[in-house]
Amino acid sequence: MDIRACLFDVFGTVVDWRTSVSRDLAAFAKQKAISGVDWLEFAVEWRKLYQPSMDEVRSGRRAFTILDVLHRESLDKLIARYGIKSLTEADVEHINRVWHRLDPWPDVIEGLTRLKARFVIAPCSNGNIALMVNLAKRAGLPWDCVLGAETARAYKPMPEAYLVSCRQLGLAPAQVLMVAAHNNDLKAAKAQGLNTAFVARPAEHGPGQTTDLAPDRACVDVAAADFVELANRLRTA
Amino acid sequence: MDIRACLFDVFGTVVDWRTSVSRDLAAFAKQKAISGVDWLEFAVEWRKLYQPSMDEVRSGRRAFTILDVLHRESLDKLIARYGIKSLTEADVEHINRVWHRLDPWPDVIEGLTRLKARFVIAPCSNGNIALMVNLAKRAGLPWDCVLGAETARAYKPMPEAYLVSCRQLGLAPAQVLMVAAHNNDLKAAKAQGLNTAFVARPAEHGPGQTTDLAPDRACVDVAAADFVELANRLRTA
Repeated sequence: MDIRACLFDVFGTVVDWRTSVSRDLAAFAKQKAISGVDWLEFAVEWRKLYQPSMDEVRSGRRAFTILDVLHRESLDKLIARYGIKSLTEADVEHINRVWHRLDPWPDVIEGLTRLKARFVIAPCSNGNIALMVNLAKRAGLPWDCVLGAETARAYKPMPEAYLVSCRQLGLAPAQVLMVAAHNNDLKAAKAQGLNTAFVARPAEHGPGQTTDLAPDRACVDVAAADFVELANRLRTA
Repeated sequence: MDIRACLFDVFGTVVDWRTSVSRDLAAFAKQKAISGVDWLEFAVEWRKLYQPSMDEVRSGRRAFTILDVLHRESLDKLIARYGIKSLTEADVEHINRVWHRLDPWPDVIEGLTRLKARFVIAPCSNGNIALMVNLAKRAGLPWDCVLGAETARAYKPMPEAYLVSCRQLGLAPAQVLMVAAHNNDLKAAKAQGLNTAFVARPAEHGPGQTTDLAPDRACVDVAAADFVELANRLRTA
C-alpha cells in the first residue's frame, strides 16, 4: 500500500451520534420544560429516517440536497409524530443543528493528530460542509480539508462519493484509505479501488448492538480497535 | 459586522508566489543542468497566462476545469516558447506542481492561527482542492476547510465563487469577511454582500509594483498591513 490520504466516515466512526444527540436534546428539553419524550429513542428514530431521505437523492428522484435540509425534514415529521408543541422556528433550527454538536470517541483526536503528520486526512461523510466544519471546530478535529457528499454531489455508498473525493485530492483510489466502522461503506469504497480500514465502534448503537462488530475480511485491508491503533498500524505498514 | 467566517485569497495574499516559483524552479533547473532561463521572468510570464486561461471557463466556452490543468497547459506553452529541451513528463509535472509548494508571507501562520480561534477560516482561491491542500500541508496553514473555485465550480471574480462559498458554510454573505491583497477581488466580493478586508502585499510583484498598494475605500471595510494586524483589528471590532 502506498497511501497518501485517509478519508473518514464520520457519524458513528468519528463521533458518537447516539449519545451526543440524546444528551444534547434532553438538556434542551429540560430548559424548555418539554417532558414525556425519551430522547434516546428520539435520536434513534431520527437516525432511522436518514437512509430513506438520502435514497430520494441517490435514486435521482430528487436533485442533490444537503443533509442539513434532509435532517430538518425528518425532524419536522418526528416533532409531529411525538406531538411536541410550543417550539419556535429558532428552537427547531437549534435542535436540527444538534448534528453539528456531536462528540468524538475518546481515541479520535490523538489518532487523527498522529495520522495527520503522515497523511492528508479528511472526512468523506454524507454530512454537508457546514455541518462537518462546525462539528470539527467544536470537537477539535484537525482535518486538512472537508470532502464528502456535498463536494462530490453524491451520497455514499454511490461510487461518485468515493471517486470524486480521490480525484479532488489529485490521487488515485489506490493511494487513498477509507476508514469506517461500517462494512457496507468499506465494501463500496473497495469496489472503487480504495484501500479500507475497519475501526470497531461496538457501542455506536448502544449496548445491544449486533451489527458491524467485526470487519468483513472480504473488503477490509486493515482492522483496528480504535484510531490510535490505526495510527500505530499504518506507521509500521 | 457580525462575522463568523473569514475567506482568503491565496496567491499573493497568503503566499509569495513570485519568489517561491522562481526560487524552486531555479534550484530544479540547476539540478537538471538547464541553463539560460531567467526563472523570475519565467514565473511572471506563467502568471500572465493565468487570467486568460480562466477566462475560457468564465465565459462558458469551456467546461469547468481545475487550475492544475490550466497551469499545465500554460506551462507547456512556455516550455515551447523558451525552447527548454530534455524534460521528461515527470519533470514537467514536478514543475507544474511548484504551485503546490509556495511559501507564505512571514505574518501568515501567526495571523491565521489567531483568527482561527474566533472564526471559521478557509481559502477562497482559484486554486483547486488538491493544490490548496498540498500547499497548506507543506506550509502549515491551519484552514478549517478548503473552499474556492473547485467547490463552487466558478472562478473568481464570478459571483458564484463567493456566494456558493458562503452557502457551503451555511452563512449569509453579511456573516463572511473576504480577505485579499487585490482590490478587484474585494470589489467583486462586496458586490455580493460580503464584508471585505484588504491586506497590503506591496512586494507581490517585486520591487517595482504599482498596483494594489492601497485599499480602494469604495469596496474595503477593513485595511491592515498584514494578517497579525488583521487579527488585532477583528478582535476589537
